[in-house]
Order: sequence, then structure tokens, then C-alpha cells
Amino acid sequence: MRQSQLFTKTRKEVPSDETSKNAQLLIRAGFIHKEMAGVYDYLPLGLRVINKIKKIVNDEMINLGSQEMLMSSLQSKELWEKTDRWDDKNVDVWFKSQLKSGGEIGFGWSHEEPITSMLASHISSYTDLPKFVHQFQNKFRNEVRAKAGIMRCREFIMKDMYSYSIDEKNHIDFYDKATEAYLNVFKKVGLSDLTYVTSASGGVFTDKFSHEFQTLCEAGEDNIYVHKKEKLALNEEIFNEETLGKLNVKKEDFELKKAAEVGNIFTFGTEKCEQLGLYYKDENGNKKGVYLGSYGIGITRLMGVLAEVFGDDKGLVWPKEVAPFEVHLVRLGVNEETISHADKLYEKLNGEGIEVLYDDRNLRPGEKFADSDLIGIPVRFVVSDKTVSENKIEVKMRTESESKLLSETEALNIIK
Amino acid sequence: MRQSQLFTKTRKEVPSDETSKNAQLLIRAGFIHKEMAGVYDYLPLGLRVINKIKKIVNDEMINLGSQEMLMSSLQSKELWEKTDRWDDKNVDVWFKSQLKSGGEIGFGWSHEEPITSMLASHISSYTDLPKFVHQFQNKFRNEVRAKAGIMRCREFIMKDMYSYSIDEKNHIDFYDKATEAYLNVFKKVGLSDLTYVTSASGGVFTDKFSHEFQTLCEAGEDNIYVHKKEKLALNEEIFNEETLGKLNVKKEDFELKKAAEVGNIFTFGTEKCEQLGLYYKDENGNKKGVYLGSYGIGITRLMGVLAEVFGDDKGLVWPKEVAPFEVHLVRLGVNEETISHADKLYEKLNGEGIEVLYDDRNLRPGEKFADSDLIGIPVRFVVSDKTVSENKIEVKMRTESESKLLSETEALNIIK
Repeated sequence: MRQSQLFTKTRKEVPSDETSKNAQLLIRAGFIHKEMAGVYDYLPLGLRVINKIKKIVNDEMINLGSQEMLMSSLQSKELWEKTDRWDDKNVDVWFKSQLKSGGEIGFGWSHEEPITSMLASHISSYTDLPKFVHQFQNKFRNEVRAKAGIMRCREFIMKDMYSYSIDEKNHIDFYDKATEAYLNVFKKVGLSDLTYVTSASGGVFTDKFSHEFQTLCEAGEDNIYVHKKEKLALNEEIFNEETLGKLNVKKEDFELKKAAEVGNIFTFGTEKCEQLGLYYKDENGNKKGVYLGSYGIGITRLMGVLAEVFGDDKGLVWPKEVAPFEVHLVRLGVNEETISHADKLYEKLNGEGIEVLYDDRNLRPGEKFADSDLIGIPVRFVVSDKTVSENKIEVKMRTESESKLLSETEALNIIK
Repeated sequence: MRQSQLFTKTRKEVPSDETSKNAQLLIRAGFIHKEMAGVYDYLPLGLRVINKIKKIVNDEMINLGSQEMLMSSLQSKELWEKTDRWDDKNVDVWFKSQLKSGGEIGFGWSHEEPITSMLASHISSYTDLPKFVHQFQNKFRNEVRAKAGIMRCREFIMKDMYSYSIDEKNHIDFYDKATEAYLNVFKKVGLSDLTYVTSASGGVFTDKFSHEFQTLCEAGEDNIYVHKKEKLALNEEIFNEETLGKLNVKKEDFELKKAAEVGNIFTFGTEKCEQLGLYYKDENGNKKGVYLGSYGIGITRLMGVLAEVFGDDKGLVWPKEVAPFEVHLVRLGVNEETISHADKLYEKLNGEGIEVLYDDRNLRPGEKFADSDLIGIPVRFVVSDKTVSENKIEVKMRTESESKLLSETEALNIIK
């Protein structure tokens, strides 16, 4: 895409009402726009990052055998009353509204209830199990405070997956596979080294069995104890002699760190399905409860964490796999030969299916470099009068400070 | 995909609370699930159709030079008060709710206001224009009545595009190009012959200039007068002597028909941008108003219209371009050679990038054919003991009643 056509503009000044690093950088670079506290629009560059993250997550879910679908946001009061999660005393993040035709509705903050209820129309026998379903969906949460940029929003995109299994063993088997898939996701988006799996229950299976995926991040809301050597982390509530003894590790090898929860997985046992009328008949015709697991990744939150963790004093720094474009082609100079060279390179990159943002604007080099650093595309190609005369391209990685003069073939090899 | 893995099941009985043909067929075939009146979930087959329609629409929008983005659903009261569209007296479809932190918010039923307001941060000069942006977004409309299945929903997916132009001439030029793009969309989804462009203003340009795209459909809510020979349609309100005289057509050549609005385009002149503070400076530094156009296609409604228009007494009939799969491979018989043949054909089709639903279930032929007709994939391949012995495939189009015995090569050519 030609940058002259992109409707967003970068800005130097930090928005006065925005204290979080992720939102400051993303707004300045034109990735997002703030509608109100905790509510953001995703502009073309931002939407491209979201779509990259969604693709990575979706591939892992499909690989687990999950089927994609899309539930409504509008939720019926009657359904959530069945599990006692309608009342504001039990769930304090509902947005509720009145139907013109009468009655109250809510806006989905999670989807265990409607999905389980819907599946009761499709699952009735042991031969129908297991089933795994997922969606990418807007969640609405009426947060009292929302000040961590896109890391804690009142409206956000979530991937939520649900597993329906025949018994505890099958449930745990899938739960373990899902844990691996989640780790693959965080590896692919570049957060492998910083992301830990923690458990609130210390590893004992209960109906409340759960794990969190925590990424070390100063802006995170959680505190975890990290054992870097063992790649082990413990939640505050289970960081005690008993747990340490069980794991055979020493207290002094742990560091207290700030972390952001980028994913969570948990089990509902058979209770939720029973409350909502989802049963199956086993081989002997006996009616049995279905084991439900729930697996979430906040897509927009993950984008925020990436901005927090990798962003530097010059701007955003996107890992290759989620960058809005693969290459930022920056043209300097306005003489015809240089323009023609840059145009041709742009066409060539497009022709090879490489995603390229082409800065074809007539601005001063300093402004163009500052914008390029702020937007944070991993690889920068500069075409200038000088590079054209030497028949080279000046190549710089966003994470490095030095550039190199390379031939076109060498430059293209860097991307592939 | 193997049908044995698909979590949805077809059903013979029509849902008792559903009177519309589109929802009856889509529910029976497992494409959608009803949460409440006017609120549906999109199950795997349904989501595939939606994604196909979105792709067709998106390609046309990108081709017009529009940039995709994604606005929030949550809307600020203050913003919509600026244009006097917050009060329920002026807009009667708002869902509104209270923020826990205080204050009222609404859920977006359209997005002219926030998009225009957001663009005021990015557009300030004549060199920034024109700009075109679009999104695929969930709209919420608090309809008093919702009984046309997915053709009139309280929550639905819409493609909305907005054009920002420098003056009336440029606005109209783009408006005309958008009209062509819309006609391309309806052609690609198979509705070309049935879709008419109508205008409420009879072709005179005003700030309320608008056109509707109406598809002939018994379940539609609108009445239009159609002149089939001239491929011309007129809204009821302008079907009078004056308009007929201007167009030089005879009243008796028109038929009154039921139609569903599948798209609409309209202009706001410069008023909306002025209300929201979006101006540009021209070459002489004079402050000027921006022309706003708004262009909608209801994605889920379009899916409903396709079900209404093409569905027959046996089930859904999808045009090739929007079908959830290209081929329905139906295996009959359970002997090993037949299974092996069908499995191999399934792998081969997958290998060639052909989207195939493989009915590998052990059910009676009658049940499998009934399901196949209900789901409505355009091409059916049957592999049975008989076809294997003759080294053929039995091929039937959903729109034809007779099947043909073809060689594998001939069968594959039908798809390509």
C-alpha cells in the first residue's frame, strides 16, 4: 500500500488523556483511535495486526479439531438466570438494556451459557462427543476502571474456545493439548521467552481447575513469582512453603514480577452442562453429564501487550509474524530516476506477494525515518539518489541501529 | 471437512416459533441457531457463507480505493447529541446502557458520527481528500418487530462504507462508481437478474440523494414497480405521472412486486461533517465542508435473501460463489473398497484446494440425499459400490434433477 493513500497520520504529541504506553504508541502511530476510556477503534494498520494475530490463533484452534462459529452479543436474561450468572451481584460487568418489545437483554461478556445451550440441540449421544468450537467475538465488559489502553477494555475482541468431553480423562487430555496450542500461539507472536503458565490451584484437578498464561510486562496487572532457570512461575496465592516443597524449588530462586494475563483456560466440570440441559447417553443408554472446558485469548489485549513489551523510545516494534506489513519501503529524494526505481521495487515486492508499505510521500528524510520507527515494521528498505547510483538498497531492521547496503537479491533474501 | 465431525445436525421438523422461510431452512440445515427473535448465531456452515459474501464485498470496496477498519460498538452520547441523533424521538432503534463508572452509552446502529469525528484527526487539507473507509461490523437495532428471520435482525453484520469528498462533483463521481461496485456484488452472489436500483428522489441531486438496491423476493418488506424489459424499478412514492413522463415509460408496462432492500447508498452533503468539525482547507487556505456519502450492505440480510430466493421445497440452494463448500461428496455403502475410493477422492479434492464437505457417515442413502439437498451445496458427487465398479462418479447439480455418471476427470472439470 502507498502511504500517501493511507488515511491515518502519525502524530508527535502524546494524547493528554492516555497514560498507558501501548495506547500512546498505537494512537501516535495511527493504529487505533480512542472513542472513550476502554473503547477503541482499530484503524487500517491496527486491523492488519489483529488479522495476523487472529490467523495465528485460528490455525492452532483448527489444528486442535475445533470448528469456528459466531455467537450473538445479545443475550437472553432467562438463559443466564439458569446458571445464576445474570444478577449483577454475581457478575458485575454486564451491560444490560431494554428491548423495545419488552424485557431485558444483556451484551455478552463470555459465552459458555449460550454455546452450551445451543449445543444441546446437536449433542445427545456419546457418538457426538467430543466437540470443540471457537469464535472470534466482541466481548462487552462494564469495567469500573479502564486505563491500561487496549489491555483492559470495555469492548474487545476475544478468541474463546469451548471443549465438550465425555469424561474427566478425555477432558484433561484435550486441556493439555490446548495448553500446548496456546504456548504455540505465544511462541509464534514472539512472546515465548516472556510467557509463563501459572495455576491458581497448584496442579490439583478440581471443577475449578485453571491455568493462566502470563507475559512478563511492566504494565501488567498481576504479580507472579518467576523461576527463570526452571521456566516456572507461581501465582501470589500459592507461593508458599507447601507449593515450593512439592515442586522441590527454593524460595530465593524466585523473583517477583509484573505480568499481563494473555490467556486463560479453565474447567467447569459437568455442572454448567447440567444446569443448561446438555447431557449425552452412553453406550448403555445412561444419561451422563458433559465436561466443559473454556479457553480464552484476548486478541486486542495481546496486541497491547506486544506494543508494551517490544515498543521502545522511538515507537512500536512488531515481531515479523504480526507486523502490519513485512517491509517498509521508504523513498528519499524526488528525482525521476529515484522515483522510478522505488516504484519498480514496490511493484516487484507486491508481485512476489510481499506485504509492503511504500512511503511515497514528499517529506524530509528525518520525518520519514521517524514515522517508520514509530510504525515499527520489522524491515526497512530505503531507496535514495545515493542507493540508486550504487545500484543497492539500504536495509535496516527495526531492532538494529545500523543499516546495510545490499543488492536487491540480498535484500529480498532477508525477507524470505 | 468430514461431515461426521461437523457438530451441527440437520433436522426434519420446522422450528415452531419461526415463520420465515430463510430462518426455517437455515435452522433445519444447521447454518444458524436462534437466540431470540431477531438474534441468531452463525454456526460453521453459516459462518462459511458469511465469509464468502464478505470476501466478495471486500474485494469490491478495496477496488474502489477504500481502506478497511473496525469501529467500536460502544458509542458516546455526547458525540451523537452533536447531530441530534441520540434522542429516542429522533432515532428509535438505540440500545442504550449505563456505564458502571457513570454516564450513558449506546450500541452502534450506524457509524457516520464516530467515523466522521475520528477522521477529523486525520483530514485537514484538500491534499488529504478524497478518502474512503469501510468496515464489517455488528450493528445493533432495537426493532419493535423482528420476524423475517435473518433479513431483519436486532443484531446483524453490515458492511458500511463512507466516502469523504472535496466537492459535489467528486462526491457524485464516487457515488456512481460505488453504485457499479454494488451491482458487481449482487451479480457475483447470483442476484443480478433479480436486483434493481431504485431511487426515492427520482434522480434529482439533493442532500438527501439516495438509492436502494432491491432484490425481488416474496419475503421482502418493500413494494416496487418493475419494468422488466427496461430493467427499471420505481419506489411506490415516486410511481406517478410526473416520473413516468420524465422517463418516457408507460404505466401499464410496470408490475408491482415485493422486494427486499439488500443495499443502500446515500449522501449527507456537507452538513454531517460540519456538525462534527470535519473541514478541510482548500488551495487558498479557505475552510470548506466535506461531502459525506454512506454505503451499506447487510451481509447477514443478503445471506437471508439468498436463502429465500433460491431455496426450494427440498432445502437451500447456494450459488457457487457463496456456497459453504464447492462439492458435497456423498459416500454410500460400507464395503472397504468403496470407503477407500471415497477417502482417496476426498484427499484428492482437498489436495487440489477444492472445498469439499465429505459425508462419511453410515446412514441410509435416503437420509444422506435429503441432508445433501437441505444443505444445498451446488455440486454433489456420489461414490457407491455401483460407481466404484464402473470406475465413475455420479454427479448431480443441486439445481438439476438428473444425475450423470462421469469419469473422475470429467467430474473435476465441472468444478473448475
